[in-house]
Amino acid sequence: MDEPEATQHLCQWLADFEHALTCCDTPAAVALFADESYWRDLISFTWNIITLEGKDAIAAMLGTTLSRVRPCRWIIEGEAHSADGVIEAWLTFETAIARGKGRVRLKGGKCWTLLTTMTELKGFEERQGESRERGTEHGVVPDRRSWLERKTQEEVELGYGAHPYCLIVGGGQGGIGLGARLKRLGVPTIIVDRHERPGDAWRKRYKSLCLHDPVWYDHMPYLPFPDHWPVFSPKDKIGDWLEMYAKVMELNYWHSTECKSARYDKAMGEWIVNVDRDGKAITLRPKQLILATGMSGVPNIPSFPGAKRFKGVQHHSSLHPGGDAFAGKQCVVVGSNNSAHDICADLWEHGAEVTMVQRSSTLVVKSETLMELGLGSLYSEAAVKAGITTEKADLTVASIPFKIMHEFQIPLYRKIRKQDAEFYERLRAAGFILDFGDDESGLSMKYMRRRSGYYIDVGASELIATGRIKLKSAVELIEIKEHSVVLSDGSEIEADLIVYATGYGSMNGWAAKLISQEVADTVGKCWGLGSNTTKDPGPWEGELRNMWKPTKQEALWFHGGNLAQSRHYSRYLALQLKARMEGIPTPVYGMGSVHHLS
Amino acid sequence: MDEPEATQHLCQWLADFEHALTCCDTPAAVALFADESYWRDLISFTWNIITLEGKDAIAAMLGTTLSRVRPCRWIIEGEAHSADGVIEAWLTFETAIARGKGRVRLKGGKCWTLLTTMTELKGFEERQGESRERGTEHGVVPDRRSWLERKTQEEVELGYGAHPYCLIVGGGQGGIGLGARLKRLGVPTIIVDRHERPGDAWRKRYKSLCLHDPVWYDHMPYLPFPDHWPVFSPKDKIGDWLEMYAKVMELNYWHSTECKSARYDKAMGEWIVNVDRDGKAITLRPKQLILATGMSGVPNIPSFPGAKRFKGVQHHSSLHPGGDAFAGKQCVVVGSNNSAHDICADLWEHGAEVTMVQRSSTLVVKSETLMELGLGSLYSEAAVKAGITTEKADLTVASIPFKIMHEFQIPLYRKIRKQDAEFYERLRAAGFILDFGDDESGLSMKYMRRRSGYYIDVGASELIATGRIKLKSAVELIEIKEHSVVLSDGSEIEADLIVYATGYGSMNGWAAKLISQEVADTVGKCWGLGSNTTKDPGPWEGELRNMWKPTKQEALWFHGGNLAQSRHYSRYLALQLKARMEGIPTPVYGMGSVHHLS
Repeated sequence: MDEPEATQHLCQWLADFEHALTCCDTPAAVALFADESYWRDLISFTWNIITLEGKDAIAAMLGTTLSRVRPCRWIIEGEAHSADGVIEAWLTFETAIARGKGRVRLKGGKCWTLLTTMTELKGFEERQGESRERGTEHGVVPDRRSWLERKTQEEVELGYGAHPYCLIVGGGQGGIGLGARLKRLGVPTIIVDRHERPGDAWRKRYKSLCLHDPVWYDHMPYLPFPDHWPVFSPKDKIGDWLEMYAKVMELNYWHSTECKSARYDKAMGEWIVNVDRDGKAITLRPKQLILATGMSGVPNIPSFPGAKRFKGVQHHSSLHPGGDAFAGKQCVVVGSNNSAHDICADLWEHGAEVTMVQRSSTLVVKSETLMELGLGSLYSEAAVKAGITTEKADLTVASIPFKIMHEFQIPLYRKIRKQDAEFYERLRAAGFILDFGDDESGLSMKYMRRRSGYYIDVGASELIATGRIKLKSAVELIEIKEHSVVLSDGSEIEADLIVYATGYGSMNGWAAKLISQEVADTVGKCWGLGSNTTKDPGPWEGELRNMWKPTKQEALWFHGGNLAQSRHYSRYLALQLKARMEGIPTPVYGMGSVHHLS
Repeated sequence: MDEPEATQHLCQWLADFEHALTCCDTPAAVALFADESYWRDLISFTWNIITLEGKDAIAAMLGTTLSRVRPCRWIIEGEAHSADGVIEAWLTFETAIARGKGRVRLKGGKCWTLLTTMTELKGFEERQGESRERGTEHGVVPDRRSWLERKTQEEVELGYGAHPYCLIVGGGQGGIGLGARLKRLGVPTIIVDRHERPGDAWRKRYKSLCLHDPVWYDHMPYLPFPDHWPVFSPKDKIGDWLEMYAKVMELNYWHSTECKSARYDKAMGEWIVNVDRDGKAITLRPKQLILATGMSGVPNIPSFPGAKRFKGVQHHSSLHPGGDAFAGKQCVVVGSNNSAHDICADLWEHGAEVTMVQRSSTLVVKSETLMELGLGSLYSEAAVKAGITTEKADLTVASIPFKIMHEFQIPLYRKIRKQDAEFYERLRAAGFILDFGDDESGLSMKYMRRRSGYYIDVGASELIATGRIKLKSAVELIEIKEHSVVLSDGSEIEADLIVYATGYGSMNGWAAKLISQEVADTVGKCWGLGSNTTKDPGPWEGELRNMWKPTKQEALWFHGGNLAQSRHYSRYLALQLKARMEGIPTPVYGMGSVHHLS
């Protein structure tokens, strides 16, 4: 089918759809969906992040929301595109209170997938382009205050007397990007972070760390990296970027500030948060509390017998500084995911004797291959040239329902394994235990389901394949002695250093730490889809648990993810917060149940 | 003429032109130009910034340069456009060593204006987009050094043992933007600036200062302001932007560093420059010295009789902090250009009694009108939407030969004066002496000719028109007493504060200060066209004197101008420096003579 024909089909469907919605005729609307169909909504209909799976779920949602949402002005953006029996197109639409963007896919004339997202609240649009601020008031203004005076006053007052509407705990890329969106929306916000400078969460990691995702995937909101930015940002360079970003976006960023405790005063509808700002105790009373403390939550350190008597250096991977001090030393790295590999390679490059202890199977994919086959069509120089903006790429990713996402990924990983067959064979020959996910759906799915279990290879695999990094696989660490570790296969390895690259807990661990175990349990596990695969127990949720959307604890939010997710979903989180600040009704449709506590 | 026809005409002309150039047939090439014709070259043919005016000048240039330059691959970019009997189009071309862009205008089938510019040197292209750096080296690299380690080492070594190829004196927007281009071209450079932080040259000005030009005109190279950036940047905000820019562009920026003296060692082919870096004397030996100390040069303070006995506060406008301390005080501002107006308004807004002493006529244009009629077609939100990138706008401006630029400006100012007739009448009625340039060609021409004599009205004119700022016009300040100033009309005004908004000398004043009067005189006056209008004595030069191009002093360069000029011309200055560093021959065609010393 050529473009004009596809466009005509799609416009007809859209007209029928609009007509049904306008008449609040849910049966007519639902009749336009296929039996297998998915409607993913990012807050535009539901004030939730939710995927309605199948006609019944769609009917139920429309039945509840339609008369309030009053969607209209559905317009196709550009031409529709047809391939493999699927017609797809970009849409714009409006609701009673907002403007939105969407993406629809038709199969056999019926809707297979629909994405609806809110882009802005009417009357609360971000000022940009033509509507940007003037910066100065021309004319005569007695007692005029300069930009600097106004900014300084805000900095002096906010948190001291004037309370912020939002408090973001954690000033990494997630907190900073969300802070920028809230700033642009005029939502008074403080970001607290325990480090001395924005970007320190990156700077303080092991020194060889570079982003594993390429630059096209990593832009912050509003201010993309310039054209010469390296493909893989070194950690200190990304740290500097975040520091300048927080400055030029004029965020109220409280560095050297630790959040000590928080509790929700339900009667007052506000949080009472105790922070230590550079040695001084301050109580903040924000209406909304956002935990952006890293989607990976609190570091996991299994309690290995004998760990206390170990005479060498031992620490979690998050505290590992780099290999400089370990030339000639015996180093044991427990774990086999990204950090474990990076740290092993760095130690080896610094002349250490390194053993990796692989306790369970791991997905490995070469960075180059992932860039080429995995991200290339959406996030690459070629994509930029083809007119795929970062926003379009983000929305395209968002438009694939989680329920069927693995179906797109399985053929991709079949291709990857074929292309790199020799590489995988060599790794296996060295004893490395590979997997590609329970259903062979690869890295992205593992990331969504369990945010662990993979390594994006930037070189360490070669060291393992050639035996330069020694490997102990399919073993557990069963005991630690004064100068060695004992493994479940009976072997004992000398150790001057043990690095526990043993991952992180669920984000609601932070809620337990800062608020209470009760609130952490009320909220339940964060992240994961309920796919009933390894480390992602069911039942099926259809979305990432608790991320960027209302939780069972009023006014408590979780923000995080990689740079791309933080960028994209911070938009919807910011709009949810803005709407609440402005007193716009935000009835949440489809709050899930809590099935797991961590 | 419609676009296809115009394009056909233009392509035919271009084919003929290319053929003549390829055959080194200067007469044939020159025959393609009209009797009135201009070829402006930005370093692509001449390694100079020069406008050849008329066929003879063009023939002479081609006769000298053609066999070396070997231009080829002339290609029209997009469609030609025809209006008012002129066909114009964008071009790309190559020379033996470089790639270039151009713009041509035909009248009656012959070339009326031609712009040729160098965009990059072959083999020394900036790495960007697809060719950007990787950021990390994947694979196994024993003793790998991180980005931070390499950067730290460069910072430690450069200037101490390892000498920079370029030294830029002055770290305002000019020095920083040029520094960024040189960084991208791999030219080791140090920028020295006497202030504590990048951006301080802006921060330390009077507190009400905002940019007088709108944001679309003010982008820095590589990293444009984000979409929400205010139309008129407040000075401290631009200061913060420059500070972060210097950081993320990884410039070697030596703050708190004063350049004490410099001399050229001709035998060694290098400068010996003494700087004081935070209290420590250091000698640098750069091959190239660039003065980016502000195109306005050293502050002018006329020596008024009695100034020494004045009991109040007196300072040059460049040192004026703002009006806060002067509520209820008697303030006299000598001068009537931008700074004088801004300072008067700020003082009045802070409750001071203000008198402006206008010594000569002044061009005033309302900021809104200038934005709408003056810059709107090239630098505005509408221009952005119409696909006019900043680069295209810059090249369009550059494509108008200075010789005929006033012809484009006179009708514009006729329109402006008509539109704001009432405004001008009220100003005149208050005694303000207006002019619009000797030939009524307005602000841009005044700026190019004498960089003074105008005010972009952002509110002060209203205060003058209504008498809230008192005005003494067509007078000179003839004497200063202990508590007053005496004017040439015999009047005496009480004064607690005198601000000398009396402008700045020529940039070669900096060369006199840092190097020697002899070198300053060798180089001669900077800026100005030789238009033989007020403060711009002839003979005609055709270009701004000494700016961004070779001077009569080997290895000495002047960089400056407003944000737009600094952005655009830093490209050509950086390429000239890069070529010299790489040992590419750079024979300069058409070095002018020095007609004025300051």
